Amino acid sequence: MKRYEALAEEIAESIATGQLRPGDRVPSVREASRNRGVSPSTVFEAYYLLEARGLLQARPRSGYFVSRTMARQAEPQCSQTATRDQAVEVSELVFQVLGHARNRSLVPMGSAFPSPALFPLPRLALATGKALRRLDPWRTVEDLTPGSAALRRQIALRYLGMGASVDADELVITNGAMEALNLCLESVTQPGDLVAVESPTFYAALQALERRGLRAVEIATHPRTGIAVDALAAVMAQHPVKACWLMPNFQNPLGSLMPDSAKQALVELLARHEVPLIEDDVYGELHFGGHKPRPAKAWDRQGLVMHCSSFSKTLAPGYRVGWVAAGRFVRDVTQRKFMSSVSAPLPSQEGLSEYLQHGGYDRHLRQLRATLAQHQQAVLGAIARHFPAGTRVTQPEGGYFLWVELPEQVDALALHRLALSQGISLAPGQLFSADRRFRHHVRINYGHPDHPGFQQALETVGTIAKALASVVN
Amino acid sequence: MKRYEALAEEIAESIATGQLRPGDRVPSVREASRNRGVSPSTVFEAYYLLEARGLLQARPRSGYFVSRTMARQAEPQCSQTATRDQAVEVSELVFQVLGHARNRSLVPMGSAFPSPALFPLPRLALATGKALRRLDPWRTVEDLTPGSAALRRQIALRYLGMGASVDADELVITNGAMEALNLCLESVTQPGDLVAVESPTFYAALQALERRGLRAVEIATHPRTGIAVDALAAVMAQHPVKACWLMPNFQNPLGSLMPDSAKQALVELLARHEVPLIEDDVYGELHFGGHKPRPAKAWDRQGLVMHCSSFSKTLAPGYRVGWVAAGRFVRDVTQRKFMSSVSAPLPSQEGLSEYLQHGGYDRHLRQLRATLAQHQQAVLGAIARHFPAGTRVTQPEGGYFLWVELPEQVDALALHRLALSQGISLAPGQLFSADRRFRHHVRINYGHPDHPGFQQALETVGTIAKALASVVN
Repeated sequence: MKRYEALAEEIAESIATGQLRPGDRVPSVREASRNRGVSPSTVFEAYYLLEARGLLQARPRSGYFVSRTMARQAEPQCSQTATRDQAVEVSELVFQVLGHARNRSLVPMGSAFPSPALFPLPRLALATGKALRRLDPWRTVEDLTPGSAALRRQIALRYLGMGASVDADELVITNGAMEALNLCLESVTQPGDLVAVESPTFYAALQALERRGLRAVEIATHPRTGIAVDALAAVMAQHPVKACWLMPNFQNPLGSLMPDSAKQALVELLARHEVPLIEDDVYGELHFGGHKPRPAKAWDRQGLVMHCSSFSKTLAPGYRVGWVAAGRFVRDVTQRKFMSSVSAPLPSQEGLSEYLQHGGYDRHLRQLRATLAQHQQAVLGAIARHFPAGTRVTQPEGGYFLWVELPEQVDALALHRLALSQGISLAPGQLFSADRRFRHHVRINYGHPDHPGFQQALETVGTIAKALASVVN
Repeated sequence: MKRYEALAEEIAESIATGQLRPGDRVPSVREASRNRGVSPSTVFEAYYLLEARGLLQARPRSGYFVSRTMARQAEPQCSQTATRDQAVEVSELVFQVLGHARNRSLVPMGSAFPSPALFPLPRLALATGKALRRLDPWRTVEDLTPGSAALRRQIALRYLGMGASVDADELVITNGAMEALNLCLESVTQPGDLVAVESPTFYAALQALERRGLRAVEIATHPRTGIAVDALAAVMAQHPVKACWLMPNFQNPLGSLMPDSAKQALVELLARHEVPLIEDDVYGELHFGGHKPRPAKAWDRQGLVMHCSSFSKTLAPGYRVGWVAAGRFVRDVTQRKFMSSVSAPLPSQEGLSEYLQHGGYDRHLRQLRATLAQHQQAVLGAIARHFPAGTRVTQPEGGYFLWVELPEQVDALALHRLALSQGISLAPGQLFSADRRFRHHVRINYGHPDHPGFQQALETVGTIAKALASVVN
């Protein structure tokens, strides 16, 4: 844990225990720096993090105060490691439930995507048009897999900014992160193999396992700090785990963020067992704290970590450009990509390459992060006001999902159906585990700050949930 | 066989038997129409077909003459059905050999792609820029798989023009035809299953079978008329064939075109056995005759034919837009597409949709077909002049590949390596069969009419082939 994280944790503890109360002014950056013997920037980072988590509020020219609206709500409990591995059969339910989520007339709480209005699509359109007009036609033949050399260089540069060193030659451009993840899985597993995943797990990971005939073992995962590395170690000591598919940064659906020390321990554990990690990091850029979290890939010395990401959730939805830094598996993944779909689309690659080169990306990201962090607060507030007593909710430091644990009596599939009848989509917890263990949980997408009906819809969902909780009682 | 085809065949026979000789003038369209009691347009279609096959030449204001340069060369022999099915292991060789083919400095005879200069890339760039600038951002969420509704409607319209009726709801847009073919294969087979293919077979089909752990049975295929349906019937009566992967129109590498009657017999045979056909039809638009050949899909009444195609070889290389008309498998293929890469790229789909709507496609295709037909003649002429005695070569009525059968002593892999040392790529016959039976065959890509070194390179390859033929003698 970094110094500013330790300081933030200490202050959060004071708030949780009531030592600091809603409305209290916390020491100024200068005071705190002097009192605690840390640099002002450390204090600033800690306050920034606490602000992102909704515990502090900045008031212009007055300093930082303990948030009044957001007494921190209880967070969901840490999940437990599954008692046995199992075949995966979740795909049909996922398609049934999410088939609705694309309907524009619904309030998109169940959607996997943030609002398309959050992205600079007009600027991307100009960049794409410009790049295509000056395209050398031979690039259509030469720039097949592994993909545009210019784009791979720009992606490699961005790794430096997150404390990892990745060579452009290690990168394979894919049709979005989903293709990258699937190719990695295909590269390191055979049907029937055992793959370790978080609990809850992103349903698309479960679908990918099911599609390839793999077995899943779901590992205990903390809603704030991610997968329990010791629990994973215990499973690996007993079972022939062939790969891990994990999201260390802002896991979907938990939003959990593994501390650096846990990421390092994870990579070391996997290196001892020679087990590859398929790292899904599509939300890492959407951090609310001052620093971009490092990927587990940053600690990889063996080439065992296959780091997958994309621009789909951060910049260019629909462009279908993702990639993998495939470590020692790069040749195999490149060949599989070629066999499966020849290459990634050139117009999308050219447009993104042009846009990235002219430097609007970081400015856009800063604004996007601030917008999402702010709307998270509004949604958490509404949940606190409208959801039934006993509700627990995550308060992630990035991404755009909340994981809500409702009272045990609330069946999430019933809640989903009733909400749908009121024009609201939801992602019920049953989608997020091979053993359907999350029956009274829902994932809420707060990445739609521009949606006029969102607050009202949260009240409606809360009302339905209260009714379900009381009926069964 | 249509009336104009019968007439063309009759004239071709007269040329083959010497009744008509090089330089002879054939009757004018009006004379022939009167003498044979057929319509002038039938005669015109027949002459057009013979011109495309290089047997006739038109001279402005003088009429049609038997071609002097192109006494029709002997065609390669019909292949034989494999005596047993077998596991496929060809991928490594394909990557070894074709890794070179993308190098711009080589004469690209071994390439799988036509010259990028043949495509209207500047117009597509404008269309893409325009379409993206007016894109409704919500389309990025709504237009996931099965793909853009507007583009699917336009593709459905094109099916009408080829005598098949396909509803837009049956279409799934993919990342090029290769993804479509792979998804279809995944949809109708399990690892270990037996799949019937042509002989020779497009190597990417063999790679797809290998990747999925399938077994191949290679069926006798005629270099002009395609797969022998009776041979396929005999195999299916004996073996549990689970699917066929075939190219009825301008097969890669043969360029063979199945007659309508054979396509119909094929579809009926498969319907009797309830076996699905994965129809790869990426070259159908590149016909030199007056009519676009119908896909086997046109005879499908059971929804068993999965018709795959793309714009990559006809309009927009690098855009990675293909599709499948998936028949009864449409729901399954849609779900697999979603799981494997979520959706096809929106910029490419929008650009193509805009371009297709404004009607330049058919004009472009007419010019492209004429260019390819003309260059085929030039390349056949050079082969006749420079290749060793005993060389046999196809003379396809579409596409951009020639299949060359060299004297038995010529090892195609040796020829490939020696040609490479002279700056020329070639696709050796060994790539096109699971049992490596085509050892003295090569595929030559004549889709590079603008390449300044092409004729010289053909002479060089001929010289090397002659040397190889004589050394071993």
